[in-house]
Amino acid sequence: MMISEKMIKLAQNNSAIRAMFEEGKRLAALYGRENVFDFSLGNPNFPAPQALKTALLDILNGEDSVYVHGYMSNAGYESVRSAVADALNKKHGTAFTLDNIIMSVGAAGALNVVLKTLLSPGDEVIVLKPYFVDYGNYVANYDGVLVPVLTDPATFQPDAEKIAAAVTPKTKVLLLNSPNNPTGVIYTEESIRKVAAVLEARQKEYGTSIFIVSDEPYRELAYDGCEVPYLTKYYRNTIVCYSWSKSLSLPGERIGYLAIPSECDDYKLVFDGAGIATRICGFINAPSLMQLAVARCLGETTDITPYDENRKLLYKGLTDCGFTCVFPQGAFYMWMKTPVDDKEFMNAAKKHNILVVPGASFGCAGYVRIAYCTAKSTIARALPAFKKLAQEYGLC
Amino acid sequence: MMISEKMIKLAQNNSAIRAMFEEGKRLAALYGRENVFDFSLGNPNFPAPQALKTALLDILNGEDSVYVHGYMSNAGYESVRSAVADALNKKHGTAFTLDNIIMSVGAAGALNVVLKTLLSPGDEVIVLKPYFVDYGNYVANYDGVLVPVLTDPATFQPDAEKIAAAVTPKTKVLLLNSPNNPTGVIYTEESIRKVAAVLEARQKEYGTSIFIVSDEPYRELAYDGCEVPYLTKYYRNTIVCYSWSKSLSLPGERIGYLAIPSECDDYKLVFDGAGIATRICGFINAPSLMQLAVARCLGETTDITPYDENRKLLYKGLTDCGFTCVFPQGAFYMWMKTPVDDKEFMNAAKKHNILVVPGASFGCAGYVRIAYCTAKSTIARALPAFKKLAQEYGLC
Repeated sequence: MMISEKMIKLAQNNSAIRAMFEEGKRLAALYGRENVFDFSLGNPNFPAPQALKTALLDILNGEDSVYVHGYMSNAGYESVRSAVADALNKKHGTAFTLDNIIMSVGAAGALNVVLKTLLSPGDEVIVLKPYFVDYGNYVANYDGVLVPVLTDPATFQPDAEKIAAAVTPKTKVLLLNSPNNPTGVIYTEESIRKVAAVLEARQKEYGTSIFIVSDEPYRELAYDGCEVPYLTKYYRNTIVCYSWSKSLSLPGERIGYLAIPSECDDYKLVFDGAGIATRICGFINAPSLMQLAVARCLGETTDITPYDENRKLLYKGLTDCGFTCVFPQGAFYMWMKTPVDDKEFMNAAKKHNILVVPGASFGCAGYVRIAYCTAKSTIARALPAFKKLAQEYGLC
Repeated sequence: MMISEKMIKLAQNNSAIRAMFEEGKRLAALYGRENVFDFSLGNPNFPAPQALKTALLDILNGEDSVYVHGYMSNAGYESVRSAVADALNKKHGTAFTLDNIIMSVGAAGALNVVLKTLLSPGDEVIVLKPYFVDYGNYVANYDGVLVPVLTDPATFQPDAEKIAAAVTPKTKVLLLNSPNNPTGVIYTEESIRKVAAVLEARQKEYGTSIFIVSDEPYRELAYDGCEVPYLTKYYRNTIVCYSWSKSLSLPGERIGYLAIPSECDDYKLVFDGAGIATRICGFINAPSLMQLAVARCLGETTDITPYDENRKLLYKGLTDCGFTCVFPQGAFYMWMKTPVDDKEFMNAAKKHNILVVPGASFGCAGYVRIAYCTAKSTIARALPAFKKLAQEYGLC
C-alpha cells in the first residue's frame, strides 16, 4: 500500500462528505446559488468586528516587522499569554498567569496538542453523543480509544450515571463541548457538578488522573443571557481549548489557546509537554500577527444578534411545520429529529435543495444538524421548502 | 503516569535545550544582552519585504472580511494554490495546477501532513546525517522508524551508495533538506541524479513506492548564484514541503505549502490523503490572511545580502583563527568542526558568552552549528571571543 493504512480508511469515509459538497455545487449550477439552501457548514457568514481590522492595521503600521512576524516561544508571546490570562481572570474569577496559557492553532490545534500530551496508546477518551465527528480522528491520531457515551435523550445534557459506568482505570480524558456542536445545548452548572463528582470519585477509586478537556469555540455564542459555566472552577483537572474562530468570525486564521490550571495534576509536566507537543506536532507556534491582534480584541465579540434572529426564525419555522427541534441556547446549530432514517431524510431534503448533515456523522442517528450561521434570507427562503418536506412525511 | 509515555521522554530531552536558552538569559542578565553572542536559533533578524506589508494592508482594506478570515477548502484558497502553481511552473518549468498544491502551516506542518499521509507503523524514513533534530520527532508521531544515513564526510553531499545500502522493502520516505540545516550545503545535481537512480532501482526491485520528501525552507537562500535543483524534475515520487518563513522572514506566521506532482504513484490518494491529514492533524487549513498575502508576494524574497555578508565575515573570522568550517552555499548556518567533543566545546564557548548548538543534536557529533542570521555587529563582536576559544585549543 502506497499511503498509510489509517489514511486509506479515512479517505473512503471522507468521500461521503465530499460527495455532499459536490452535490451542493451541482445543485447551485442547476438552480442558482440563491436557490440552494446550504446549512451543512459551520462557517460564520458575518464579518469580524471592526476592532480586529483596526488592531491588525495598527500592529502592521506601528510595530517592528521582526517582532510581528518572527519566532517567539512555542507557547506564544509572553505579553499575549499574560493578556489572555488577565482577561480570563477578570471574566471568570480564575487566577491564571502566562504560565497557564499556551497559544494554539485554533481549538483543533489545541485539542491535538492536549491529546498528544496526555494519551498513551490504549488510553480511553470519553466523548458525549452527539459529538463533533473529528474527535474520533483526533483521538485515533494518538492511538487513544474513543468511548462514546449517550447524553440524556430528552435534554442532551451529560448523563453523570452513564459517564460513571463508562469510566475505567484507562480513562484519561472526558472531552466536552458546550455550547454544543451539534445540539446547541449549554451544559448546566448542575450537570457539570454531577460530572465533576463522578470523575473525582473515580480518580480516587483508581488512583488515576482524569482530565476534562473542554472544547470551547462557541463559549461567546450564548443566547438570552445564558451563562456557560467555566469548568476549571468545578473540576481541578480541567484543560480549556479555546478558539476565536466563531467569537471573532475568523475561522480561517486558526487562532486559539490552551488554558492549563496550576492546580491540575502534574501541572508542570502537562504544561511543558503541551509546549513541546505544539512544536513537534508541526504547529511550532500559533500564527504571530494574529496572536498580537486577538490580544488587542479580548473584550470584543462578534455581534450575535443576527445568529439569534436566525435561531428564532428557523426554530419557529421548523416547529410550525411539525418538526421537533432542540431550541438552541448557544452556538449556531439546530438539532432536529428526523421522521425517518437521518440519511434517508438528508437525501429527501436534497431534493428540495436543502443541505443538512445527518446525525450519524455525530454518532447519533435519527437527527440532522442544521447550521444557521447563514444569511437570514437563506433561512426565510428555505422555510417553504422545509414545509413541503414536512408535508411529505405527514407532519403538517 | 499522568502524561503520555512518549512525552515524558521528550520532556526530559527538551530540558537540555531549554537549559541552554536559560543559560543565554542568565548570561544576558549578567553581562548585558549585547555581550552575549547567541548563535543558537534560526530566527531571521531581518524584516519582511515591504511588499508583504503592502499586500497585508491592501487585503485588509480592500477585501471582504468573511473572505479574508473565513474557512476555505482544507487545501487552501483555489486562487492562492493556482498562483503558487503558476509561479513554480514559471521558475522551474514544472506543470503544476492548483490540484498539485496544498497550503500548509509552514514546512513543519507540511512535513507532518506528508508523514501522516504516507506512513504506516514500522515504515522506514531515511534521513541524512546531519539532520534537523525534529525530523526524528515527526517520524515518531506516525510510528515510523528513523534510519539516519551518513552523508559524505568531506562534502556533506548525499552518499548514494550508503543510501542504497539502507533502503529496505519497508522504506517509504527519503527526507532531504537542501540548502541544508545545519551544514549550509546545497545538494548538487549530480548527487540528486545518483540518489534518484538508487531509489528508482530499489522501487523496481521491491515493487514499492519510495517518496523523496524535500524540506525546502531555505530554497531562496542560495549564495553566489548557486542553483538549487528542483527535485520533482529528477525523481517522479517527490513531494516538496516549502515555507516562506525564511524567504519572506515570517517564521512566526506558519505559512507554506506542499507540492504533490500528478506523476507520483497513487497521486489522487496521496493528494486527497494530505488534504484530510491537514484537517485531522488539527491544522484545518493554513492561516487565511497570510495565504492571500504570500500569493501577492510570489516574486519577492528577503534581500539575502546581509546573510551573505555575515557568511563571509564569519567564515573568514573562524578560519583565520584556525577553525575548520564548511563554506556555506545556502541557508544561514555555519557547520564547524570542534577540536574536542562538541558538547564540551559548547560549554567552553558558553564561558565566552558564545551560544552554539552541538552537532550531536543533529545526529552528528564533533561539530557545532552556528546560526548567522544575526546582526552583523554580533558576529564582529563575537570574533575576538572565538579567537580566545581557538587559542585555548592551540588552533592559533
